[in-house]
Amino acid sequence: MKIENLISQIRQKKSFLCVGLDTDLDKIPKHLLQEDDPIFAFNKAIIDATHSFCVAYKPNIAFYEAYGLKGWKSLERTMEYLNQNHPEIFTIADAKRGDIGNTSTRYAKAFFETLNFDSITIAPYMGKDSVEPFLDFEDKHTILLALTSNQGAFDFQTKIVGEEELFKEVLKVSKTYQNTDRLMYVVGATKASYLAEIRKIVPQSFFLVPGVGAQGGSLEEVCQYGITENVGLLVNSSRGILYASNGEDYMQAAAEQAKKLQEKMEVELKRIGFLS
Amino acid sequence: MKIENLISQIRQKKSFLCVGLDTDLDKIPKHLLQEDDPIFAFNKAIIDATHSFCVAYKPNIAFYEAYGLKGWKSLERTMEYLNQNHPEIFTIADAKRGDIGNTSTRYAKAFFETLNFDSITIAPYMGKDSVEPFLDFEDKHTILLALTSNQGAFDFQTKIVGEEELFKEVLKVSKTYQNTDRLMYVVGATKASYLAEIRKIVPQSFFLVPGVGAQGGSLEEVCQYGITENVGLLVNSSRGILYASNGEDYMQAAAEQAKKLQEKMEVELKRIGFLS
Repeated sequence: MKIENLISQIRQKKSFLCVGLDTDLDKIPKHLLQEDDPIFAFNKAIIDATHSFCVAYKPNIAFYEAYGLKGWKSLERTMEYLNQNHPEIFTIADAKRGDIGNTSTRYAKAFFETLNFDSITIAPYMGKDSVEPFLDFEDKHTILLALTSNQGAFDFQTKIVGEEELFKEVLKVSKTYQNTDRLMYVVGATKASYLAEIRKIVPQSFFLVPGVGAQGGSLEEVCQYGITENVGLLVNSSRGILYASNGEDYMQAAAEQAKKLQEKMEVELKRIGFLS
Repeated sequence: MKIENLISQIRQKKSFLCVGLDTDLDKIPKHLLQEDDPIFAFNKAIIDATHSFCVAYKPNIAFYEAYGLKGWKSLERTMEYLNQNHPEIFTIADAKRGDIGNTSTRYAKAFFETLNFDSITIAPYMGKDSVEPFLDFEDKHTILLALTSNQGAFDFQTKIVGEEELFKEVLKVSKTYQNTDRLMYVVGATKASYLAEIRKIVPQSFFLVPGVGAQGGSLEEVCQYGITENVGLLVNSSRGILYASNGEDYMQAAAEQAKKLQEKMEVELKRIGFLS
């Protein structure tokens, strides 16, 4: 997908919401467990209930791999369903991959070609030749971990390298890679004060922002420090939407939570004049 | 697997060779493409040919994921074959995963439980709560990326954090995690001079050493700087063994390459007195 198409989706839906598909058999409504493929059944229902309020879906690959072959099948079916019914929606493989060149190329093929994702999350530790194979793919996007939303982010990401934090070094070095127009960044919402500093280094790039809601980040703060004239934000919510109810009314509850976030986002989009 | 069992395997086979299963349909002998599951057929043949000379197998997960559901099935069959026929051999999921806590737990289940690997490679960028979920599993091992063998290692891993390189910081911080007796480290052979410095920080831990052979590292140098009284090394070779021949004689050629490495390792094991 081209970035312009993502931006036009945001304008049309008045939303920059990403719904994280962290589908967990222990948490989905019990009646779905009778289905042949409960994971897909749940994902389909969530997509049907929320697609008007969001511009992106982000399957968390670990949740599928944990179920082995069955999980991988559910992931394939979910992507087929999205590609067929909602090709305008941006898809993110939350995979956090990264390996030496020829191996990264394999992961890129797995997610960009075999599964037809629009983007994938990538860890930066192995450097340039682990990231660039993903950037080779036209109209596909590589979302590099910069500053994550977990406590462990303070172990290394915020350590000072030379004169500034490692995550800033990651941002700066990544700007020297090839095809940087295909780069986006993971920037956790739990440290909104860092967002302004990050925005200075990469003023135009899209950020995938986890950590709003369950992890305590504030949407208003994220927008205050991170929003650009083209929005430049995809704010993710997973558990708050997926598991808003685990009863028969789960679709309605998920839709309500997604709509609530969409409405808050609409306010922000109007505030900056992106929507009139 | 307990570490003592790995060490006793090394003694028995006079080898600390790990064979990397980077199985690529474009490189395996053409006649195997007629098989129902050419990836598994190739892996089985390689295992049959080399198991006397090695103590570990390391499927590179990207190569399986690239083929989607079929690839995942081939991986499952490979692990079933190994677990049934060679339960004494140490298995490594070369997956380079790492994510926030509840997601890392999912990856741990995928590889330690669903696929029954003995170990997995993990990227450190997200810190403590992304690594410890893997360390929770008894008799399973977490192989943390410290210093990798690719050019991109110089992007971040060797940058100075405080007073020393990031990879040393990773080693030191990781020693404060829970269940560190289940930690091993990836240490690339292409920078053997760093090995002595790394060995000072983690004197007892096992290192998974890629980069000998195709990537230019020397086995003798690795042993000179990295070997311990309990060996503490698993040296990997992938392409040099798997694709020693792409003709009908590929099994024999693979066995010969594995045997050559085993014989060199035997010399080193005798030199340090591990073998008499």
